[in-house]
Amino acid sequence: MKGHGTENDFVLLPPGEVDDLTPDIVRALCARRRGVGADGVLRVVRADSSVPDVRWFMDYRNADGSIAEMCGNGIRVFARFLVSAGLEEPGRLCIDTRAGVKDVDVSTSGDVTVDMGAAEVLPDALVQVGSTWYDAVGWSMGNPHLVILDVKRLSAFDLSSPPVVDPASAYPDGVNVELVERVGPCHIRMRVHERGVGETRSCGTGACAAAVAAMESAGERTTYVVDVPGGRLMVEWHSDGRVSLTGPAVLTARGETDVAISS
Amino acid sequence: MKGHGTENDFVLLPPGEVDDLTPDIVRALCARRRGVGADGVLRVVRADSSVPDVRWFMDYRNADGSIAEMCGNGIRVFARFLVSAGLEEPGRLCIDTRAGVKDVDVSTSGDVTVDMGAAEVLPDALVQVGSTWYDAVGWSMGNPHLVILDVKRLSAFDLSSPPVVDPASAYPDGVNVELVERVGPCHIRMRVHERGVGETRSCGTGACAAAVAAMESAGERTTYVVDVPGGRLMVEWHSDGRVSLTGPAVLTARGETDVAISS
Repeated sequence: MKGHGTENDFVLLPPGEVDDLTPDIVRALCARRRGVGADGVLRVVRADSSVPDVRWFMDYRNADGSIAEMCGNGIRVFARFLVSAGLEEPGRLCIDTRAGVKDVDVSTSGDVTVDMGAAEVLPDALVQVGSTWYDAVGWSMGNPHLVILDVKRLSAFDLSSPPVVDPASAYPDGVNVELVERVGPCHIRMRVHERGVGETRSCGTGACAAAVAAMESAGERTTYVVDVPGGRLMVEWHSDGRVSLTGPAVLTARGETDVAISS
Repeated sequence: MKGHGTENDFVLLPPGEVDDLTPDIVRALCARRRGVGADGVLRVVRADSSVPDVRWFMDYRNADGSIAEMCGNGIRVFARFLVSAGLEEPGRLCIDTRAGVKDVDVSTSGDVTVDMGAAEVLPDALVQVGSTWYDAVGWSMGNPHLVILDVKRLSAFDLSSPPVVDPASAYPDGVNVELVERVGPCHIRMRVHERGVGETRSCGTGACAAAVAAMESAGERTTYVVDVPGGRLMVEWHSDGRVSLTGPAVLTARGETDVAISS
């Protein structure tokens, strides 16, 4: 099964299909031309949990075969698959991940909302994009982000090489960088450079960090529309500090492959 | 069905599946993240031909929805599909294309050979790659090519922008450019910039033009191994002037999608 959320795309492995998912199999599946092609693999696993509501574990892998804790776009596609395959009813689901149990709400309309947890403040820093240095505010959504607010002419920026951070010591493991342009009240547009990956079409935690930074700067906690290159997301910052991410999750194709075996 | 030849990849539409293939459907299928993802679509059509051996027509479309006459990697994947689906026996097949009927030979080993027709001389020209001008020899394989022979450090060239041709008037409709490094006797390695596309992982007519140019320069007509970024091809230049291209053609996945309808 293949699906995407705002053009962040995944190969879904239904429960019981692949018990031993090796990095080689992940890389073969995700290869754009030799394989099925995807940004990552979502293996659907029946949860071995004592908590009654937790019936599923999301085994998420990056395209390079490495293990990732969580993926805000991936978990929405994962939940959409559970409902579409008849394994769950629409509504609220609890999905276990390597970053803990996540609450997900699958609407019948197509949008899926995920509780991304609390946003936490990180150190501010200077970020160089192209030849210019910008002030950036730091926020964690489980992973670190530096958000450059209120840029003009978003499309003109060159994100082909990793932005430089000063002081580098503030983010020794690297950092995701978001460029944010205000479109109107409660509406921003952004581009993102993901650490270790490059510019991407969408980043769920990045959309949350960007919206939170923009709301904090505007002195409000509300719901923002966040346009990313791959589509439109909505981010709500709740009074208790938690952030929820809503957006489309689409299943595009289903089929069989043996690329993983033959590679 | 999905397949590739030296990482030039295609969505195959089996006979009768899609009668009215619009550019919108092609673009939706070929979209890498929102669709299935491919360089082009191969629609398998039962030939309406009076010639008894011609049972199939290859309806080839580029990923942008435009119509293309022929594709040397595509027709090999097309033939592999016919045999794999049980529609033809392994061996020699005649496949009709918009560039005429092509002879294809499907081995049981996995390689497929296609008769690409005669190579014809085109005007030589100067080609600028990066900041340097190079002598290039012109060859047609149905489409135009300028081949830069005997380059050193093939991987160091910058093909991110279209090479400039002098005189431009020699190739008013644009031209494909191949960079060729000799690896050893009868063995070259190449990179290709396809007109209107950019650098690609493989180009069937480009491999033929590159091998023919290298053979002509060495004063021989024989079989060359041609390494392209996406894999290995073999090109034979026959005494009658015809060129045949041999290489892998692999089916990677099969399945269903409704992206074309929902987009």
